[in-house]
Amino acid sequence: MAHQALIAKGDIAKHVSGARLWNRLMELAQFGALPKGGVNRQALSGEEIAARACLVRWAKTIGLEPSTDAAANLFLSYRGKEPALPPVLIGSHIDSQPTGGKFDGALGVLAALESVEAIIANRVRPRRTVEIVAWMNEEGSRFAPGMMGSAVFSGARKLSDILTVRDAAGVSVESELHRLLTAEPQLRQRPFGMKPAAFLEIHIEQGPVLENKNKSVGIVTGIQGKRTFRVQVDGEEAHAGTSPRIARRDALVAAIDVVHALQNAMWDPEDVVRFTVGMFNVTPNAPSVVPARVVFSIDLRHPDVATLRKLGDAIPEVCQAARVRCDISVKELLHDPPLEFPKSIRHMIQSVAQALGVSWMNIASGAGHDARYLHYVCPTGMIFIPCRNGISHNEAESVQETHAADGTRVLAEATFTLANTI
Amino acid sequence: MAHQALIAKGDIAKHVSGARLWNRLMELAQFGALPKGGVNRQALSGEEIAARACLVRWAKTIGLEPSTDAAANLFLSYRGKEPALPPVLIGSHIDSQPTGGKFDGALGVLAALESVEAIIANRVRPRRTVEIVAWMNEEGSRFAPGMMGSAVFSGARKLSDILTVRDAAGVSVESELHRLLTAEPQLRQRPFGMKPAAFLEIHIEQGPVLENKNKSVGIVTGIQGKRTFRVQVDGEEAHAGTSPRIARRDALVAAIDVVHALQNAMWDPEDVVRFTVGMFNVTPNAPSVVPARVVFSIDLRHPDVATLRKLGDAIPEVCQAARVRCDISVKELLHDPPLEFPKSIRHMIQSVAQALGVSWMNIASGAGHDARYLHYVCPTGMIFIPCRNGISHNEAESVQETHAADGTRVLAEATFTLANTI
Repeated sequence: MAHQALIAKGDIAKHVSGARLWNRLMELAQFGALPKGGVNRQALSGEEIAARACLVRWAKTIGLEPSTDAAANLFLSYRGKEPALPPVLIGSHIDSQPTGGKFDGALGVLAALESVEAIIANRVRPRRTVEIVAWMNEEGSRFAPGMMGSAVFSGARKLSDILTVRDAAGVSVESELHRLLTAEPQLRQRPFGMKPAAFLEIHIEQGPVLENKNKSVGIVTGIQGKRTFRVQVDGEEAHAGTSPRIARRDALVAAIDVVHALQNAMWDPEDVVRFTVGMFNVTPNAPSVVPARVVFSIDLRHPDVATLRKLGDAIPEVCQAARVRCDISVKELLHDPPLEFPKSIRHMIQSVAQALGVSWMNIASGAGHDARYLHYVCPTGMIFIPCRNGISHNEAESVQETHAADGTRVLAEATFTLANTI
Repeated sequence: MAHQALIAKGDIAKHVSGARLWNRLMELAQFGALPKGGVNRQALSGEEIAARACLVRWAKTIGLEPSTDAAANLFLSYRGKEPALPPVLIGSHIDSQPTGGKFDGALGVLAALESVEAIIANRVRPRRTVEIVAWMNEEGSRFAPGMMGSAVFSGARKLSDILTVRDAAGVSVESELHRLLTAEPQLRQRPFGMKPAAFLEIHIEQGPVLENKNKSVGIVTGIQGKRTFRVQVDGEEAHAGTSPRIARRDALVAAIDVVHALQNAMWDPEDVVRFTVGMFNVTPNAPSVVPARVVFSIDLRHPDVATLRKLGDAIPEVCQAARVRCDISVKELLHDPPLEFPKSIRHMIQSVAQALGVSWMNIASGAGHDARYLHYVCPTGMIFIPCRNGISHNEAESVQETHAADGTRVLAEATFTLANTI
């Protein structure tokens, strides 16, 4: 790549309007708006359909061509000088958690729109087409698991696999995709199989690091690995009033000891290990009955592949050693290794931030993102901006307008660079 | 009381038929029979109505007079020589847990029937009327809380209070009482307010003590006291992948520390304290979300009033000290002090067991029973028999026929004694 000669002049960045971006963020947040300032705009809902229509209107105003695919990923294209070349993709998602915030996902799509608007204002058409993308169902709150659109786009999952997924009300992805695509008859539908030249995604950090370090952007080094387990502890139901402690096989007492032992085994003075027991179900869960069974989840994440392997591999043994008088079984559900974004992309983004005078630092992503799937098909990078108190998946999620603008200026310059040099 | 002169001759006991009792236990277990040998005969269900009809048929065969009251307590009366005197009541309940056993409750009612049959066979009519009773809804599994019939009978609760209680399907006690009483138009309905001369209840131990000590019967000294609490731990929801440990306010981590601290504070090397966390609910209970809230139950029991007070009073402080970075609130829901059955009744039963050569020991009741409410209105006593491995509230609940017969022989002699001497 020969980015260096082309970047850092700020020609694109100077056309980025923080106010216009902010207004669009607030306007998009009206679709599924909640009383406390958050949004409920779950995948393939009526709220998301309306928000997509709004996006398409904005895109058409500035001359972009909208299209979609059979997984309802939405693309808004700004044609390059050599439209036959694979495009540079930039974007994120606009679906939300049921009580989500205004910025998770939406920032990435609207910053991409703002970037393209700045590129257009610069009046130098890039070599490659630039496409804004809004991936379908990143959150996975309504239809599990998430990142469906990017998974199908990248070939990691088959379209037929996701069609049969149903929400809690029994509605299938297939029927909601049909409803959405029928609601947008004017959109050209394109086939799968296109391999982009590159993908960039800007996102809120969803953690407190950038805020604490007082940096405007984070250049994401990679996405940490994740292993998930389900642990089942089996004891024996007994009468809370009559059964002596010595005779009990109390599944809750054992499960608590097991979680304690796991906390010790996963203890990391550096606080890089992420160890969470988020789900914990007791049977029969009655106040006067000694619990017969506990099923709990383990979510373990780490950016280093060897550490993640070592810690995760230790879990069954730690559980067995701490099970007291109960039986225990440990099942691994998922093992996504850590991934590292290409240094070439990260260095290019760092150079852009440096040149624009935007304070930056390297940062690992704790959360998963659509960029995980794109990473396997094209050079991919991510930019984070701080969010207040690290809070996300919460109506209280908040960002500073200046951080959103700074991040977008970096994204816009980086996009233009990629579209001309990659 | 001048029991001593009248007891221990075995005139009544010799008419007790263990085989007849056992056959009736097996026959009654057909109402609500489950595949693994247990019963589902919850309060006021169709299965219980059918079982009551069976009881009434058996009672009429031996000349007893059935009646009921507005709380659907069922009485089967054997008229004494002085029928104007308050009767001696003996019995228990025939409702069960949803996956209950054949003996919990049913033994007490059928042993009472066998006792009356033995008294009749002795051909000496007692001075007082002897009434077999089956209390309505002892278990409380369908309509909470349990011991409804005995609570209303004894005046501890008002009938109007229980009528509005609904089961999980929304059906009220009132409508089910109406259905039951309509199904039994031949039964005389009697008013509340009668104060019995005494009450005796035989029941399975629901614990392992008698079996371990190889005794046929336990003379119940009293019912241990019970305090129940609800503890709520409030932390903050956070992303399992992005939130560092140091920034978390993990309600599950805190709750586990609190339960551990409580286990230590309630630790009793004598194993007399009964401390149980049976219910434990996590919010939002999602594998990749740091828990924001845990609500758990505490069930604390002890036979000594001072110890129960001291341990229970310490709970809020122990919780506060162990709450880590979360908020905690502790609410006491119930404080039933321990009760001691009158020594006169216990000594009389001991003398009977001694005279009959039935091995016995004193034992405290860990579980609550209808006898708790009767204790407050008349001299009350209880007899336990061993159950296999201490298991109850379980289809696997099991007793030995010889123990059931031995306990019934003691009950029959004791009942006859009371009906003549109290």
